[in-house]
Amino acid sequence: MNLILLYTSDFITPHRVQISGRRHQHMRSIHQAQAGETFRVGVLNGLLGEGTVETIGEHSLTLSVRFDRAPPTPLPLQLIMALPRPKMLKRTLETAATLGVKDLWLINSYRVDKSYWSTPLLRPDKIREHLLLGLEQAGDTRLPRIHLRKRFKPFVEDELPALARNTRALVAHPYQAAPCPAAQDRPTTLAIGPEGGFIPYEVEKLREAGLNTIHLGPRILRVETAVPVLLSRLFPLTF
Amino acid sequence: MNLILLYTSDFITPHRVQISGRRHQHMRSIHQAQAGETFRVGVLNGLLGEGTVETIGEHSLTLSVRFDRAPPTPLPLQLIMALPRPKMLKRTLETAATLGVKDLWLINSYRVDKSYWSTPLLRPDKIREHLLLGLEQAGDTRLPRIHLRKRFKPFVEDELPALARNTRALVAHPYQAAPCPAAQDRPTTLAIGPEGGFIPYEVEKLREAGLNTIHLGPRILRVETAVPVLLSRLFPLTF
Repeated sequence: MNLILLYTSDFITPHRVQISGRRHQHMRSIHQAQAGETFRVGVLNGLLGEGTVETIGEHSLTLSVRFDRAPPTPLPLQLIMALPRPKMLKRTLETAATLGVKDLWLINSYRVDKSYWSTPLLRPDKIREHLLLGLEQAGDTRLPRIHLRKRFKPFVEDELPALARNTRALVAHPYQAAPCPAAQDRPTTLAIGPEGGFIPYEVEKLREAGLNTIHLGPRILRVETAVPVLLSRLFPLTF
Repeated sequence: MNLILLYTSDFITPHRVQISGRRHQHMRSIHQAQAGETFRVGVLNGLLGEGTVETIGEHSLTLSVRFDRAPPTPLPLQLIMALPRPKMLKRTLETAATLGVKDLWLINSYRVDKSYWSTPLLRPDKIREHLLLGLEQAGDTRLPRIHLRKRFKPFVEDELPALARNTRALVAHPYQAAPCPAAQDRPTTLAIGPEGGFIPYEVEKLREAGLNTIHLGPRILRVETAVPVLLSRLFPLTF
């Protein structure tokens, strides 16, 4: 936990927070926090700063806090992914949040097993839990937005063209594709298929919506490897 | 399984192989392989090519095979990592193999829990198993070499200077570091610390061995995210 995320409900005065539950437990047992120690803190969707431990109890602790820095710059990216299997979904949400993705669409595809849409991980509280873990890892506060689209065709026909317009719009697809373009700090729309890729019909619909196919060379990467590889190739900003 | 890896022991004639066990099971149940179907094959540490299914039985199947392509170009990289915790080690071996790493040193660090060195995953057969999975994913045949170094100081003092000499020698460390350099196709030595980073003493020893500290910006990445990010920033080759 490189950052302690704070919520409006934690504030007992404008400069003092009281935290309990998972964050309190983590600070007591893992960090062995003592009164007087300082930690990085950040308000959800707000500024970063520092917190100094005042009191530590069995069930909660208090910090005096001050905020002075903006969170890291977000990626100018609209990321669209075929829904991964649950274990990979979990890690993908955390990694996307860590890398600075702020808008993620999870869509259907022929190769997405129907059962994946029933996973408890897609409940809003579970999604939020994994996004928060990703933010705490990176030291970021801005919560990403996750959009679920269970039906491929309506999304790609009705929504995607407007999303893609005036952006560098790409679909990572290993076949009949141009090499991945150079890093540029510009609005980007990027679609990544399921393991095994989008099927030809889907690639055609994505092209019609304005996305150009790109590849990463001869090696076929797992989706969860492709995400950090693509993001670090497409954007020049150090994360 | 994007590639079926073949071993010398599979060959019953120079152009015919018989495979059983995991690979046979996978082809029967997941791919539902039929006689006449063609698959990508590659000989371990050899060429890539195609195999056509001839016969399929309960316990084995045969393929007629021909080889015509070199495997993907390896990364000119000597990767040194503080030993990750077992679950992450597993994924790291697979990801490193997938991305084209051919030499990986797993070393000790203050923040590496002693128990990690006792994991059964460090047995040669388990290491090999995960490397092969990574190769099958990428469509590569060249098996990486893994070097275990349980003692940090002798490795960094006695071996590392010679390894690093005449290479672009770097240690990914978030503090007091230069930004990650641009992509270049050149021999590189890269050290990545444990979660929480190398301690100051270790960073100093790595510098003495000739490694320069680099950072990836304000976001702190997990080790398993940092590996694909660093490799895709440091090398221009599409994978």
